[in-house]
Amino acid sequence: MMREFRRLLIGKPLHNRELAHEKLPKWKALSIFSSDALSSVAYGPEQIMLTLVAVPGIIAYGFMAPVALSILLLLGIVVLSYVQVAKANPGGGGAYAVAKKNLGEMPALVAAGSVFADYVLTAAVSVSAGTAAIVSALPDLAGHEVTLDVMVLFGLLMLVNLRGVRESSNAFVIPTYAFLFGVIALIATGVWKAFIGAPYLLPPESLARQQLDWAMLFVILRAFANGCSSMTGVEAIADSVPMFKQPEARNATVTTYWMAGILSFMFLGITYLVMHYHILPVAEVTAMSQLAEQIFDRSAAYYYIQFTTMLVLYLAANTAYNGLPMLLAIVARDGYLPRYLSTRGERLTFSNGIILLTLAAALLIIAFQGDTEHLISLYAIGVFISFTIAQASMVVHWYRQRGKGWQVRAFLNGLGAAVTGLVVLIITVTKFLYGAWVVLVFIPIMIYIFKAIRGHYNTMSEQLHLPEACYERGAATFPKGKHTVIVPVSSPTRVVYETIKYAKMIGDDILAVHVSDNDELAKKVIEKWKLWDPGVELVVIRSPYRLLMRPLLHFIEKRCREKGPNDYITVIIPEFETRKAWHRLLHNQTGWFLRNTLIWKENVIVTTVPYHLTK
Amino acid sequence: MMREFRRLLIGKPLHNRELAHEKLPKWKALSIFSSDALSSVAYGPEQIMLTLVAVPGIIAYGFMAPVALSILLLLGIVVLSYVQVAKANPGGGGAYAVAKKNLGEMPALVAAGSVFADYVLTAAVSVSAGTAAIVSALPDLAGHEVTLDVMVLFGLLMLVNLRGVRESSNAFVIPTYAFLFGVIALIATGVWKAFIGAPYLLPPESLARQQLDWAMLFVILRAFANGCSSMTGVEAIADSVPMFKQPEARNATVTTYWMAGILSFMFLGITYLVMHYHILPVAEVTAMSQLAEQIFDRSAAYYYIQFTTMLVLYLAANTAYNGLPMLLAIVARDGYLPRYLSTRGERLTFSNGIILLTLAAALLIIAFQGDTEHLISLYAIGVFISFTIAQASMVVHWYRQRGKGWQVRAFLNGLGAAVTGLVVLIITVTKFLYGAWVVLVFIPIMIYIFKAIRGHYNTMSEQLHLPEACYERGAATFPKGKHTVIVPVSSPTRVVYETIKYAKMIGDDILAVHVSDNDELAKKVIEKWKLWDPGVELVVIRSPYRLLMRPLLHFIEKRCREKGPNDYITVIIPEFETRKAWHRLLHNQTGWFLRNTLIWKENVIVTTVPYHLTK
Repeated sequence: MMREFRRLLIGKPLHNRELAHEKLPKWKALSIFSSDALSSVAYGPEQIMLTLVAVPGIIAYGFMAPVALSILLLLGIVVLSYVQVAKANPGGGGAYAVAKKNLGEMPALVAAGSVFADYVLTAAVSVSAGTAAIVSALPDLAGHEVTLDVMVLFGLLMLVNLRGVRESSNAFVIPTYAFLFGVIALIATGVWKAFIGAPYLLPPESLARQQLDWAMLFVILRAFANGCSSMTGVEAIADSVPMFKQPEARNATVTTYWMAGILSFMFLGITYLVMHYHILPVAEVTAMSQLAEQIFDRSAAYYYIQFTTMLVLYLAANTAYNGLPMLLAIVARDGYLPRYLSTRGERLTFSNGIILLTLAAALLIIAFQGDTEHLISLYAIGVFISFTIAQASMVVHWYRQRGKGWQVRAFLNGLGAAVTGLVVLIITVTKFLYGAWVVLVFIPIMIYIFKAIRGHYNTMSEQLHLPEACYERGAATFPKGKHTVIVPVSSPTRVVYETIKYAKMIGDDILAVHVSDNDELAKKVIEKWKLWDPGVELVVIRSPYRLLMRPLLHFIEKRCREKGPNDYITVIIPEFETRKAWHRLLHNQTGWFLRNTLIWKENVIVTTVPYHLTK
Repeated sequence: MMREFRRLLIGKPLHNRELAHEKLPKWKALSIFSSDALSSVAYGPEQIMLTLVAVPGIIAYGFMAPVALSILLLLGIVVLSYVQVAKANPGGGGAYAVAKKNLGEMPALVAAGSVFADYVLTAAVSVSAGTAAIVSALPDLAGHEVTLDVMVLFGLLMLVNLRGVRESSNAFVIPTYAFLFGVIALIATGVWKAFIGAPYLLPPESLARQQLDWAMLFVILRAFANGCSSMTGVEAIADSVPMFKQPEARNATVTTYWMAGILSFMFLGITYLVMHYHILPVAEVTAMSQLAEQIFDRSAAYYYIQFTTMLVLYLAANTAYNGLPMLLAIVARDGYLPRYLSTRGERLTFSNGIILLTLAAALLIIAFQGDTEHLISLYAIGVFISFTIAQASMVVHWYRQRGKGWQVRAFLNGLGAAVTGLVVLIITVTKFLYGAWVVLVFIPIMIYIFKAIRGHYNTMSEQLHLPEACYERGAATFPKGKHTVIVPVSSPTRVVYETIKYAKMIGDDILAVHVSDNDELAKKVIEKWKLWDPGVELVVIRSPYRLLMRPLLHFIEKRCREKGPNDYITVIIPEFETRKAWHRLLHNQTGWFLRNTLIWKENVIVTTVPYHLTK
């Protein structure tokens, strides 16, 4: 039953040899790897506006343009720097791999923790923003955002990724281009209407340049920090160089430039329109939706924009599903996470990582009630930490290699590292109390966990390891010892018969033990045992406190103390397997208890001879 | 740790011989066994009022007196009848035991189901009414009723009863007498004030006799049915005859009369006061509280009444804790419920029954949001069904015995049975839609469960039973068979070494099995195995679908099909026990899986040789 259901949901198992990648042409790669970066124009400019407008009594549109332009400058530096990363790592590999190679364990673990946090947030932010887009268009759905988010996570993203869909599938290509087309049409129409239409007027006091005091500067920097969420995902292409067609690095570079150009254009366009149309925060309606409604009314074009925005954002969430399970597998293979995160499931996907990501993202969404604005406060800091580490690693890389023109490359990466490091500082200061502290607490915790797990695996493998001498000497010897079999019994039954039959097969020294809280009953059992005469000694233990387990344990423990180091005691518990699961509730679980208590004794083995009731 | 905590909460284990009962004098017995019956005046008259006042536009005080008097008449008949029950059953025993002796299995199970439902409701109703009393006095607690109820159930009743307090404890005697004193003072003062004070006037139309049409009759009968909740608990004395001092039956009879007299007086008094002071339903304030406030204002006397009411009601809930676990133990001993309900725990109490009752009552309270009125709708029907069955049994009993004056006794019990049977009918008809259906569905379900459990135990004991011939013949023989030991291994480690050491001790035919999804790794393992040379054959199974369990299972299943009926296969899983519990999360649970899958195979034993990691 379970197996059939599983088949239906995730399909039949795949053979090892089915693990292969199709090489992607640029136009496909662009749409697949940049859905995360490009879709962020759906919330990035809005976040800048929200932060600036939140200042009481001020509508600080005046500062939107400089903030947006600073972000684009930052984007330019990071892209130039990441093109160097792509060239140097034709094998791909994210911040963790690059840092491990060039900077050592600690920076690599910091990167792993940051990227972990960031991927989970990518999934959470993108799904909630996607839902916000569709809820803006269909207000009837308002109030069910969290339910929708969780359904998309479990019912769509988790399931599709457990099945393991090829990244090259057109299902991933179409939404991105459809979204691009919609946004470009929106910007074009919006700008055109802005020129021919009546000018939108703000009250003069809000158009006046605001006083630029320290408080205002803080707000502006926070707007910048929130706007940086638009830059998450630009590293995706550099991390995926091996997926490109030949020449891989060159194609990846060209695609990165294209991505950056399109992102810049859309980001500027949307920011301009938000400023021109004086978009203000409205509950349960996104800024994009307001824009689209102002420009297209509630026409088919409006719904097209909202629908493709939703699709591309869910697709952006999917990039976390491509990235995180793979990262977890690499980290797990290095022993910093449970091993089973690195094994491929039936469908060749890293199933455990996929489930972990889904649970973590769902928890975040539920904790933040699916509120994109609050989730954004946690966002971006992780990605900028990993940017900084990856680029710093590259500086070391170029310095070590000292190939032709290494100074330029090292300078570009160094500049990138310095700038993104500065951004980390800005985000930390301006968003600390707004949520960034969560991530800054999470990363050290993760590093502690990584180290603890690695430590456990290390001591474990030391303890399990057979000394080399064993292989050199060969012909392993096993010291002989005595073997005592203890069978706890209530009274002679078929189960006891089967158990003793097995006991006689595995040992010669057999003891039956009966614990009794009732002297009369004990006498009857002794009498019956004598009549039955199975050739096994019966020991009776009185228990006036009506406890069965403890006297039995004392008896076994006493035996344990008396035995030699190579002697074994096997405790065989006569148990019956009931035909129906609920029948099990009708019997006490002595066997289970005994097993869990005795498992701690050296050289004591607890086993059961399950007797199968047929009725 | 767990054991110390347990000690602290419920005390140290008690010896069998500490199970003894103190014989109770009448004054103690009265307070202990009638807290349930007497405390019901805190909600009984209120329920009559609530039902009559609920009729739109009518304040049917006019019908309160006849309803109350009918209930007292009923009480008289039931008490006379139950005195006969006490005389005939000096050994005590509730409806279940009496019905089983005289009427047979089915009526006994109906009685068991009804009493079960009724005890759970006694706990739920009494606790919620007790909380209502204290919330009326301290309105700040309003809104937290369910929390308080659940705290009282788990923190007070369950814990005290798991410890097992002597029923003779003064802690149980004082609240009942304190409550009696308070209620009698309330009635006396109330009546005195009613004579000297200004008369309370109702608008004439409500004082006028209402039209007695069918609808009104239905309401009156429902008021009567709800008022009958005051009669639950009157059977407690007759069920507990052996607890009395000599002469037991006589003392029990006298105490029953006293109880009935006091109950009648208080019931009439409270009903009169409710009518005279025109008490109407007020949210979160009980009728008793309104009365006490009208008569005493918010003086110390008022708080005394509310506080003792709360105490006596919680004490009434405790009678369910005396009765139900004992009933469950008797029913379980007859095989109709899981056996472990009949074993006494460390403190000689029926711990499992106590926990079951607490959970069931808490569930009811949570489901009904601690609303006494709604819980009352389910109440009383169970107790009246058991009244009817117990008294009908007595008729059969007297008829069978035909001792001196048996006709009178049989008539009294027959009258009781007929009258209470009629009440069952009235409750069913008038409260069916208000909640009685829940109980009427619950009882057949319980009977089905009783029978299913008994059926399972019967077939089980048939299957486990050794034929008598085994005892007559003696010197039991055990056929010999082959024994194969299979050890799944990953690669040679210390765990594998220990496992093979044990395997060599319990059998001669040993096979090591390695499942591999990677040909290169498999080659290495084979090589290492040859070098190590433990004297055990290694079988390698390829698994290109990366599944480990299924190929192993197929291998074992194939072996199973080939073996003879007396052959055994032991699968020993090399497992290590991690030193810390969380470490276990870092390893896959193959052993657990394998055990749960192979437990269904005949003559296949799965065991583990736990290797203890020390670091």
